[in-house]
Amino acid sequence: MKIENILVVSPKFQEIEDIMNKKEIQKNVKFLSEEEMNDDHLDWADAFVAFNLKSTYDYSKVKWVHSFGAGVDSFLFNKQWPGNVLLTRTICSFGQRIGEYCLSYILKDVQFHDLFRDFKKQRNWQQKTPKLLSEQKVLIYGTGEIGLKTAQILASFGVTVYGVSLSGKQKHPFNEVFRIDDHYSILNEVHYMINTLPLTEKTALLFNNSLFSCVSNIGFLNVGRGLSLDEHALLDALNHKNVRFAVLDVFTTEPLPDEHPLWSHPNVWITPHISAVTTPDEGVDCFIKTLGNIEANKPLLNKVDTNKGF
Amino acid sequence: MKIENILVVSPKFQEIEDIMNKKEIQKNVKFLSEEEMNDDHLDWADAFVAFNLKSTYDYSKVKWVHSFGAGVDSFLFNKQWPGNVLLTRTICSFGQRIGEYCLSYILKDVQFHDLFRDFKKQRNWQQKTPKLLSEQKVLIYGTGEIGLKTAQILASFGVTVYGVSLSGKQKHPFNEVFRIDDHYSILNEVHYMINTLPLTEKTALLFNNSLFSCVSNIGFLNVGRGLSLDEHALLDALNHKNVRFAVLDVFTTEPLPDEHPLWSHPNVWITPHISAVTTPDEGVDCFIKTLGNIEANKPLLNKVDTNKGF
Repeated sequence: MKIENILVVSPKFQEIEDIMNKKEIQKNVKFLSEEEMNDDHLDWADAFVAFNLKSTYDYSKVKWVHSFGAGVDSFLFNKQWPGNVLLTRTICSFGQRIGEYCLSYILKDVQFHDLFRDFKKQRNWQQKTPKLLSEQKVLIYGTGEIGLKTAQILASFGVTVYGVSLSGKQKHPFNEVFRIDDHYSILNEVHYMINTLPLTEKTALLFNNSLFSCVSNIGFLNVGRGLSLDEHALLDALNHKNVRFAVLDVFTTEPLPDEHPLWSHPNVWITPHISAVTTPDEGVDCFIKTLGNIEANKPLLNKVDTNKGF
Repeated sequence: MKIENILVVSPKFQEIEDIMNKKEIQKNVKFLSEEEMNDDHLDWADAFVAFNLKSTYDYSKVKWVHSFGAGVDSFLFNKQWPGNVLLTRTICSFGQRIGEYCLSYILKDVQFHDLFRDFKKQRNWQQKTPKLLSEQKVLIYGTGEIGLKTAQILASFGVTVYGVSLSGKQKHPFNEVFRIDDHYSILNEVHYMINTLPLTEKTALLFNNSLFSCVSNIGFLNVGRGLSLDEHALLDALNHKNVRFAVLDVFTTEPLPDEHPLWSHPNVWITPHISAVTTPDEGVDCFIKTLGNIEANKPLLNKVDTNKGF
């Protein structure tokens, strides 16, 4: 595939332009803010590169769309994708970033950070032995790039890691991988659940009353997509101790609305969708690498299967 | 060496007795509380096994003293040790435990847990990208069992790890190991400092005004010994931003006295000497393994060099 005209649309378009200009990629590149962007620019472009997407553009006008993010549900979820247009996404340090994010909150829990913070306020010298990671069992939803890297990090500490995927295909270092349609049997064994799944029809509202009723006293981490979680079911599960605490980086509506009850729940930790940020440097690197692979007809590890939705 | 009569003194002596009885070690073993213990019991014993030690006993009466803890300064610091008495200490999961403890507080920092907790209270959706561990530089004091394991854990995330030891002997995976007498040159480069050193004459008050004046905005973690730290120098360093925050598991006086200013400093995290606890199971396992090695004349990896003090 030959790519000559590239249209880059991003809130950070000036920063990206500075970085890209240093790379001298020998293409015609236009940089636009999201406000300046309209459908007409796509008539000129061979490739369209963007961070957040309006769903109203006619992507069939270009040969290739590349997402600066890892998640492509804003392009695909409940939408028809033009079959002849290549879609790729950014894969860079997401796995490592999300792995470190999840590990930080599991360690916070087993090391009793909050308890010792409270004890300090009371000048209370009361001992409690932290739990070792090797005593923990974690269920990771998603065994792709991000779920796998998170599993590798946890397994390196001796954590027993189980996986859930569409196919249920076994994969090292998961102790066992379950099919998403048939995984409830493992739920009462695990201490933590981590969702890294993309948003698809199979994963929308996956974490609902029925699922939460099968777990007891767990830590729930959502670094996948907000729409995979029924937030009211989670609040119920927190109040009934099925879920002991939740760490949420993604939400049904982002930014999380001011009046949302998750803000005030004492056992909920909220981060504003920062667990897997693409830095402009990494985004540009991944884009240029993908461009090179496309022009050299090399296999694309970051190509999206638009039927599966990830 | 033949060992027949073993005296075990511990606040948890009953729990230890239960565990030890199941192991059927075929020795004469007496279990005592610390209150019941006196010097006369040592006349009977070949081996003395204990957790906390009164310094008034005459250890020259026995052949072997084994510590249920990793630190043996309560036996050795500023004391004369009888040359013909073997001293061993417990080495079990200390390295792993302390490694996970330190990692948890470094991750808490790079993942901005406190910032996002504050933002949540204000319902503030303000993004800030966590830092990757691979961007961090950590200086670990002590390259033995505990310092090394901590270095291995951090290095597995791509952290640049430097070491400080008595000898300055290079060791993988430390990027560079400095001699304790000559390591100030690295101080202005690091983001975190972790003390794992035992208490000896070389390490008493090592962390003082002069050392802290060479660092800027660091995180300081003390999992070694409280007496290695000049606590007032640390408070000064915190107030002058040489030290951004401190995580302290050990103190000059333990329990930390009620009126101590460390309790109320907002940038100090206090844990009550729990980063490396010997569980009774682990303590007994290590003791029995050591006993077997002694009777079989095998090399003792946990033998204390009583001249060096660790």
